[in-house]
Amino acid sequence: MHIDELDTPVAVVDLDRLEANITRFQNYLGEHGIANRPHIKTHKIPAIAQMQLAAGAVGITCQKIGEAEVMAAAGITDIFLPYNIIGAAKLERLAALAQTTQLSLTADSAYVVQGLGQVLQAAQLEIPVLVECDTGLGRCGVQTPAAAAELALLIAGTPGLRFGGLMTYPSSPATGPFMRAAISRIQTAGLPVERVSGGGTPGMWHAHMYPEVTEHRAGMYIYGDRYTMNAGAISLEQCAFSVITTVVSRPTAERGILDGGSKTFSSDLLGLEDYGLLPDYPEARLYSLSEEHGTVDFSACTRRPAIGDRVRVIPNHCCVVTNLFNEIVGIRDGAVEVIWPVAARGALR
Amino acid sequence: MHIDELDTPVAVVDLDRLEANITRFQNYLGEHGIANRPHIKTHKIPAIAQMQLAAGAVGITCQKIGEAEVMAAAGITDIFLPYNIIGAAKLERLAALAQTTQLSLTADSAYVVQGLGQVLQAAQLEIPVLVECDTGLGRCGVQTPAAAAELALLIAGTPGLRFGGLMTYPSSPATGPFMRAAISRIQTAGLPVERVSGGGTPGMWHAHMYPEVTEHRAGMYIYGDRYTMNAGAISLEQCAFSVITTVVSRPTAERGILDGGSKTFSSDLLGLEDYGLLPDYPEARLYSLSEEHGTVDFSACTRRPAIGDRVRVIPNHCCVVTNLFNEIVGIRDGAVEVIWPVAARGALR
Repeated sequence: MHIDELDTPVAVVDLDRLEANITRFQNYLGEHGIANRPHIKTHKIPAIAQMQLAAGAVGITCQKIGEAEVMAAAGITDIFLPYNIIGAAKLERLAALAQTTQLSLTADSAYVVQGLGQVLQAAQLEIPVLVECDTGLGRCGVQTPAAAAELALLIAGTPGLRFGGLMTYPSSPATGPFMRAAISRIQTAGLPVERVSGGGTPGMWHAHMYPEVTEHRAGMYIYGDRYTMNAGAISLEQCAFSVITTVVSRPTAERGILDGGSKTFSSDLLGLEDYGLLPDYPEARLYSLSEEHGTVDFSACTRRPAIGDRVRVIPNHCCVVTNLFNEIVGIRDGAVEVIWPVAARGALR
Repeated sequence: MHIDELDTPVAVVDLDRLEANITRFQNYLGEHGIANRPHIKTHKIPAIAQMQLAAGAVGITCQKIGEAEVMAAAGITDIFLPYNIIGAAKLERLAALAQTTQLSLTADSAYVVQGLGQVLQAAQLEIPVLVECDTGLGRCGVQTPAAAAELALLIAGTPGLRFGGLMTYPSSPATGPFMRAAISRIQTAGLPVERVSGGGTPGMWHAHMYPEVTEHRAGMYIYGDRYTMNAGAISLEQCAFSVITTVVSRPTAERGILDGGSKTFSSDLLGLEDYGLLPDYPEARLYSLSEEHGTVDFSACTRRPAIGDRVRVIPNHCCVVTNLFNEIVGIRDGAVEVIWPVAARGALR
């Protein structure tokens, strides 16, 4: 089937570009001796995770246990889950998953460490737990190198767990000083710091500037989107991901309505103006979304689409868009090669 | 199971409030002789559509064919699809659906009318098509009463179709003058205007102020959310929908991290600041979302939650949140009474 025969809205991935993106970043990290541990939140598709592993990734990263369960069921054996796991229901699932999968975890508080320790000790396991550090994002994470060292010692002293290193997101200029200070304190206390995990796609090509960071977690680098293009991490010609829409209305000379809205593109702005780039109408502005309509201002375009025309959109943020689709269509040379169910879609728990 | 035993994040609906919301608005429309044709985009759950019909709705509204197919498969027989249906794939599905379901449709251009006519004439059907009118939203719709009359005549003269009336969204003060002028022109041309369909939840209690409008399409009125509360359409005590989260991190005295982010709440702002209301911590600000984390500023709260505490969030926009969950949990008196799959979730086509 040709791409133009797919009913819209449809999320498509250019497979040549996808493969090139996987290889390019793997090679970069390899050249710099940084382990690649891609974040599957972007695609939620086991087949793509397998491509990343085949290219040289040391394992994968998942954000929720539900994602990790899907990936483990597909045969993936090394999963990092950098999320505070809390509550009996999740801890039970975690212990079950750890029986068959090489897991590593994170914590940023004694509360989380104690919960993990109880269930993993009972399961007669010893799982590495990294200390999450807030090196500037202002989300989770211990706030100081001293707090990181204190939590590292607590982990090391908790049966069922072993201290696995340090974790932050994203890697940034503030990451180096924080990590150096934390590593120094932890080593002084007699613990080795075997792994420092950083991440992020917008700053992916700066990973080598943080020598303390031994592995990198990136998600969006495989697809690309308007945000990562705007950040300079990926070019328009490298962007593998887009949504094909149809113009369903041209109510005025300037206005066009696409058959995708906030349930197709999400409302993520990520600091940008408007909701996507129309590469074939680069002056167009996708300025408003309702749930199933996208409203475009074509007034700056000399050439404008007619009702029924197909229009490609590169959304602001690919990770939240893939989560809105049941399947992603892989395209090569204009033809459908594969249709992947978004297997871990909606894995919120 | 008690609500507090549900793993988080989980979307819950208070069934007493849901039923009261359905009854209250049905009674209001009934008192004013306005037909109720609720929009199922909000819930995407056949059982709730059946509750709306049992309360007196004349039929339902769907935005995409995929939604209508799910509802028809569940036994719902009268479906309005106010969306321009374009392209061979969708038109074939539409004709198949029309064999078993009493459909009504809309169009805002000759292009759409011709496409509908071809496939519905071939199927030996005659389906009512309403003219979509832009009475101020600036989305789809003919721009003038004269254009509405012209399209009405085209529909009436197209085999397979009959002119079914006028449609707009939302009903607003500009709706009356537009509709009066369009009705006058269409009646002068010899066509009856049997139905004028308006809609919207924020202005739901003003429906009786537009006497030209004979039926009302509302979606959010059954659940309520921060947006509809802010618009004054529904009170906090009437709001039936919320998301239960867990505090997974308290990295500072002021900051708390919830286990739901943009893949749980969506990034919809709808003109509001922040991403949701925490009714048990009303001074808290859910000011930032990443995909699986919600970052809350508790600095204005005298009482603040601890790690592991459960926090209820009323999101900005219930329609896009339900579309992110695989199921909705119905609660009565604190106990789980039903778990509904979001059957038409992700029905983008």
